[in-house]
Amino acid sequence: MTTPWTIEARWIAPRRFEAHGPTPTVVRMDARTNAGGESTGPTPMETVLIALAGCTGMDVVGILAKMRAPLGGLTVRVMGERAEIHPKVFTKIHVRYEVRGAGLTAAQVERAVRLSQEKYCSVAAMLRPTVAITHETVLLDARDRACEERAG
Amino acid sequence: MTTPWTIEARWIAPRRFEAHGPTPTVVRMDARTNAGGESTGPTPMETVLIALAGCTGMDVVGILAKMRAPLGGLTVRVMGERAEIHPKVFTKIHVRYEVRGAGLTAAQVERAVRLSQEKYCSVAAMLRPTVAITHETVLLDARDRACEERAG
Repeated sequence: MTTPWTIEARWIAPRRFEAHGPTPTVVRMDARTNAGGESTGPTPMETVLIALAGCTGMDVVGILAKMRAPLGGLTVRVMGERAEIHPKVFTKIHVRYEVRGAGLTAAQVERAVRLSQEKYCSVAAMLRPTVAITHETVLLDARDRACEERAG
Repeated sequence: MTTPWTIEARWIAPRRFEAHGPTPTVVRMDARTNAGGESTGPTPMETVLIALAGCTGMDVVGILAKMRAPLGGLTVRVMGERAEIHPKVFTKIHVRYEVRGAGLTAAQVERAVRLSQEKYCSVAAMLRPTVAITHETVLLDARDRACEERAG
């Protein structure tokens, strides 16, 4: 058993909570305006998707680094569909990995993503008994990147 | 089926990810220094506990408001113990509700917490098949509050 990991969330108002773990960085959550909140930050269920994206994203970055694969950029998008009735769990989650890197191959990315989804990602492993998690990978090429850089 | 809820997490470096949902507020996650990160924010697994705290916290605030119970303050602390082997899921989660409010009764708080844990909290419902979630409530009295206010 490892050291307990502890977080603390403090009620601000009317539905806003400010939370942090052992590091001081605060996470601000809020309910939507139609649920008594002010929509100032992600809802708790969006925060679950954020945790999933961070978890698998860090895995993929770490695995590609071990493979000495030239990762240039990574954005993880997560889409969740929810049940209509309480407790309104996610019924489907889809993860999309948008990856950049000159010389990076689709096979390297696929392998890293598969290792994360099937072996390492703690958040995915905790959600999978309740919800089907699917994923796709998109390898953006150097030209796309140049276009985006020009647009920026 | 409700509208898909989408979040996006962008890799910064070396293990930091910045994420947000439909609202612009950013959630900054990071790995610990012993895991290739810089410990600048909560880890993804801490972010799961934060989501749980926000979810059940918002429930309790809403339920007590419907009961017209005089809630003065709420802090939700969550402790998680993790498995040693991959994918290192939580094996136990404990939630502690620290509640303040002159005139608020323990029965009101217990009822609100129970409704959240057993019926409404989406995050708890998604985690429960994998991990045992226990909870306790602590009703801090007016004197405690006065002491804290003096200390501040």
